[in-house]
Amino acid sequence: MRDPRYDILFTPIQIGPVTAKNRFFQVPHCNGMGHAMPLAHAAMREIKAEGGWAVVSTEECEIHPSGDLTPYVEARLWDDRDIPALALMCDKVHAHGALAALELSHNGPTASNLYSREVLLAPSHQPSKYGYPSQARAMTLHDIREYRRWHREAAIRGKRAGMDIIYVYAAHDLSLAMHFLQRRRNQRSDEYGGSLENRVRLLREVLQDTKDAVGDTCAVALRFATEELLGPGGVELAEAKEIVGMLAELPDLWDVNLAAWYNDSVPSRFASEGAQEPFIDFVKQTTSKPVVGVGRFTSPDTMVSQLKRGVLDMIGCARPSIADPFLPRKIEEGRIDDIRECIGCNICVSGDMTISPIRCTQNPTMGEEWRKGWHPERIAPKRSASRVLVVGAGPAGLEAARALGQRGYEVSLAEGRKELGGRVTREARLPGLAEWARVRDWRVGQIDKLANIAVYLDSALTAQDVLDFGAEHVVLATGCHWRRDGYGRSNGFAIAGFADGARVYTPDDLMDGRLPEGRVVVFDDDGFYYASVAAEMLRARGCDVTYMTPDDSIAPWSLNTLDYRHIRKRMAKLGIEPVVSHNIIGFDGSTLTLEDVWSGRRRELACDALVTVTARVPDDALHQELRQREAAWSEAGIRSLRCIGDAEAPGLIAHAVYAGHRYARELEEPESGDVPFKRHFHTAHATDLLRDPAA
Amino acid sequence: MRDPRYDILFTPIQIGPVTAKNRFFQVPHCNGMGHAMPLAHAAMREIKAEGGWAVVSTEECEIHPSGDLTPYVEARLWDDRDIPALALMCDKVHAHGALAALELSHNGPTASNLYSREVLLAPSHQPSKYGYPSQARAMTLHDIREYRRWHREAAIRGKRAGMDIIYVYAAHDLSLAMHFLQRRRNQRSDEYGGSLENRVRLLREVLQDTKDAVGDTCAVALRFATEELLGPGGVELAEAKEIVGMLAELPDLWDVNLAAWYNDSVPSRFASEGAQEPFIDFVKQTTSKPVVGVGRFTSPDTMVSQLKRGVLDMIGCARPSIADPFLPRKIEEGRIDDIRECIGCNICVSGDMTISPIRCTQNPTMGEEWRKGWHPERIAPKRSASRVLVVGAGPAGLEAARALGQRGYEVSLAEGRKELGGRVTREARLPGLAEWARVRDWRVGQIDKLANIAVYLDSALTAQDVLDFGAEHVVLATGCHWRRDGYGRSNGFAIAGFADGARVYTPDDLMDGRLPEGRVVVFDDDGFYYASVAAEMLRARGCDVTYMTPDDSIAPWSLNTLDYRHIRKRMAKLGIEPVVSHNIIGFDGSTLTLEDVWSGRRRELACDALVTVTARVPDDALHQELRQREAAWSEAGIRSLRCIGDAEAPGLIAHAVYAGHRYARELEEPESGDVPFKRHFHTAHATDLLRDPAA
Repeated sequence: MRDPRYDILFTPIQIGPVTAKNRFFQVPHCNGMGHAMPLAHAAMREIKAEGGWAVVSTEECEIHPSGDLTPYVEARLWDDRDIPALALMCDKVHAHGALAALELSHNGPTASNLYSREVLLAPSHQPSKYGYPSQARAMTLHDIREYRRWHREAAIRGKRAGMDIIYVYAAHDLSLAMHFLQRRRNQRSDEYGGSLENRVRLLREVLQDTKDAVGDTCAVALRFATEELLGPGGVELAEAKEIVGMLAELPDLWDVNLAAWYNDSVPSRFASEGAQEPFIDFVKQTTSKPVVGVGRFTSPDTMVSQLKRGVLDMIGCARPSIADPFLPRKIEEGRIDDIRECIGCNICVSGDMTISPIRCTQNPTMGEEWRKGWHPERIAPKRSASRVLVVGAGPAGLEAARALGQRGYEVSLAEGRKELGGRVTREARLPGLAEWARVRDWRVGQIDKLANIAVYLDSALTAQDVLDFGAEHVVLATGCHWRRDGYGRSNGFAIAGFADGARVYTPDDLMDGRLPEGRVVVFDDDGFYYASVAAEMLRARGCDVTYMTPDDSIAPWSLNTLDYRHIRKRMAKLGIEPVVSHNIIGFDGSTLTLEDVWSGRRRELACDALVTVTARVPDDALHQELRQREAAWSEAGIRSLRCIGDAEAPGLIAHAVYAGHRYARELEEPESGDVPFKRHFHTAHATDLLRDPAA
Repeated sequence: MRDPRYDILFTPIQIGPVTAKNRFFQVPHCNGMGHAMPLAHAAMREIKAEGGWAVVSTEECEIHPSGDLTPYVEARLWDDRDIPALALMCDKVHAHGALAALELSHNGPTASNLYSREVLLAPSHQPSKYGYPSQARAMTLHDIREYRRWHREAAIRGKRAGMDIIYVYAAHDLSLAMHFLQRRRNQRSDEYGGSLENRVRLLREVLQDTKDAVGDTCAVALRFATEELLGPGGVELAEAKEIVGMLAELPDLWDVNLAAWYNDSVPSRFASEGAQEPFIDFVKQTTSKPVVGVGRFTSPDTMVSQLKRGVLDMIGCARPSIADPFLPRKIEEGRIDDIRECIGCNICVSGDMTISPIRCTQNPTMGEEWRKGWHPERIAPKRSASRVLVVGAGPAGLEAARALGQRGYEVSLAEGRKELGGRVTREARLPGLAEWARVRDWRVGQIDKLANIAVYLDSALTAQDVLDFGAEHVVLATGCHWRRDGYGRSNGFAIAGFADGARVYTPDDLMDGRLPEGRVVVFDDDGFYYASVAAEMLRARGCDVTYMTPDDSIAPWSLNTLDYRHIRKRMAKLGIEPVVSHNIIGFDGSTLTLEDVWSGRRRELACDALVTVTARVPDDALHQELRQREAAWSEAGIRSLRCIGDAEAPGLIAHAVYAGHRYARELEEPESGDVPFKRHFHTAHATDLLRDPAA
């Protein structure tokens, strides 16, 4: 089945004392479950192993209470009581022939110690990274010895848990082993500071410690950032080359990337597949050990090219393994067009950022493996011969139709427009969002293979049409539209001059090709990506754009997807000036009346047009009409009617896909009660950790 | 022992079917432990009961997965499996003769559902409150019935857990019962929207439901916000008076306050004791039921006045009960000057905000009741006849000396300055921070009662002095000073012109009375309170002040203490303009060179002086010198030397007090290992919830 040109991806490779069965390496990634939800975490990692990854890694793992990352939930190995949670993962990963890898870290001044209340540690006295109002203290030589002991003991605990690969972490500006390398964090005058040799000393020692402690049976990997893009205060490429040279043969594997996280996991809006190559391609010239790198790889041809051109030995993936845990197996089985490609929206990252379980726009089962028993490839067969009418082929409708089709239901998918994809198709045409069309493309590709799904374009349905259709189940996924009246987070009432203003535009107008000209104010009361995309689009068309928001910074929620810094830099580069902390009181078509939200001071601003990005309203007229005609359902044969996705409550594309998937999963299944998933509870013991009541 | 004029505070009062033994009511407050740490939570509440509070409440309690507050950790009663955690609290509270109260809430559009992945609910379609990129949907009549069922079932579960008082929550803009009242959130045209009668309908129904469900044995309390300070979009006093009139006799108790949380728990910098009185004093005129209110009450005279003047029937406290869980008992026992008064710094709030266990500046045992076994009033007696020398009488040194004295050690406390309190004394002189001096005053008052503590002012010690002193244990709490060179979060190297600039000032300069004049730029790379306090101080002296920060908003960490909005408004009122997202490249004494952190664009700004608020450096010269003379310790009789508080790692006053307390707790006690506290672990069961391995 497999195309022979992909054979190279399935050749085994030796990593120190262990062997990876192929070249697919799920590098460490956060997931918002970590030590708080060990059963959920283990199940998520198991799915990756089942999907064919040769190596499945944890997220970063705290080794000591002085490196406590609260509120972020990562892995934890503070003492022996933390072993069972990770042993659980190892067992599940091993069951599928994969290797388990553990990323040990002490985050030094980038920890918080909010839970442990220990004093933060750093190479030199310095503020903590994330604004916490406490400084880290300069480590003494005794502290350095203790840190090395903690790391050694954590490595041994990892080995006891069953880990095959133990990482030393010197990446992302997130660990002491890296902080000692950085001039801005290390002002020591002893043997651990000053010259490069001195700044590398601790990393070398910890690598050697780890090899000595567990190297007999475990491979020791080094995750290393080659560039921080911060100039001489940070690790720079030239110095990184020296460091790789100094340590070349010491680790059993090099996993190389960019720091910080926002430069590593760059959203697709700001970086394309393989973008890290210029920063990491030197590593293989310097070491004989296997090299892993990432680049949001989803194309097997690109992967093969990385190997053949000598850039990488193994294909590292975090996001692509989240969007499709079965990516390796699909390549292995020659099912290339079944690959559900990551769209680079970074909703996965927002789980870690918001301390909630990881989710994925493309893969609605991500994070639900344990608690809902959802599998990314398998789904229960249909319960009956019922027919289902899906109205609307946006992300919710496409996913509902696809998953219902996978279950075997006879599905009719009716779309009012002349193209499939709904908002996904429309938004993917906006600057930088082209890859988001993969949400549509994968689903359309799957639907095309299923004979039991009929697709009707250009088919807007009335309530009577639905009643006449004769389906037992009807699900409405008719989307939403942007409000024009100004109502939103900051304004509980309409803003004067908005609703019927001829020079007021919404994102829908822009996507419909109704475009303003001249001096345009983009009013952002939404706080995520739309406003900056609109601003960018209009600037590219020659408009003079002002980005105005009642919030105190632009696009604040984009911090959770690592977009924020990239948006700020792009807006600055395009000459789009932010006007923050200003609300709009009224607009007369040529003059905006603004109010400083803190001082209440008002002023006027002349402009030619306003783009208002505030809130959205469901397009649920069909739903409302059908509800009103509920008496007619029975005669029409309708047994259930549901409204999902943006038509129920406007949200992210991820919410819409999830709603469609959930609808399909739950159709005709037994009711699950008020709490439709399994939960972790909290005790003072680890004794029950491994007992799964559903097992 | 008790002053008879306080007798009124100790008269029982009937609340529906239950009786409170006195007038002290610990109103619901968040604590960052909640459902995630049930043993820790129960132990914290138990201490309050032991301290004499007649009623001890939970924090808000989620009643359904569609009101999931993740990442915030509150109480939870989604189903029966959540009962044991709250039963644990009830048992512990009842053991001390107190009543347990439960605050039920469905947070509607102010929930997140980040964990549950359910669709958010609201009276009408609207964005979620905290910037989450998903909207809440308008509840149908079916939804309203379901919501009432969830609330009723949660009330019954609360009763089964042992709760004596069940709250209906309509406060803080945090619950559906309140959201239906608010015009900006409720645009319904059915019987639940429009007129006040209609908007009150749901609250009335839920109150009645709760009484019907559990009112036979449980009191039903209503927590109600009388004013949001948002104008007609929110609950306003005039309308609140009507609502209280409409529902006057329905609840068994009224707990009234201001919304949102930042208007309720206002930091002492922005509001004084009893500040809510003008907004809540009408309630007792309208109802015959007991009325509870808050006002950061710590003075028994003020409390008596509230009762005698007919403002309140019971003294509601959250923060004062955190700073001193034994406040009622101390009044009861006539130990007024033992009361550890809340300073209104709101570090307690930051626990909930940062999803970490609650801590308190004044009470270092807060949050440590279970995991470290710390009691706010009791401490283990000394292990030996050792003498202890404490160097430095700031918050760390004062607390170390006090707690060591309480243990019975012979303590000498040497302070280099002519006054006690260190940074607390100095900062308390800054605008708005006067109450912070209570950190010093309580400790000095306690120390004065202990004959085994000798205090020496104006006694700067050299290393030789310490060696000559002859104490077996020496602890250095010598504080820190602000950096002058610009090094800090945003700058890893000194800034040109700072370190030796004659017109560069630090916060220490300001506190020393060395003050700039004219056009002053306050450069904030710290992000908490110092810069805005400095700006306020200089503005009051007639300076023309610019508040500049490389961050994208001013004082971002103050969001965690509810200071943020108050700081913004005060800065605006004082005419202090923020210049955000700008770093400083250099200062020549009259011109600053600035750089836009996003565009890199540079510009110049003329000014007369610069106040730099970046990072701090420990004053640890004495510590370093004593370390270097370690060979001489033995002969000098020194068995241990420690450096704590800001002298080890500059932080909050809370960190310093904690460090002093911890030092005293741990002195001569057995080593506790790498994880010096008990932890909760996570299982898929609730079965082990009540088993405490240390019990």
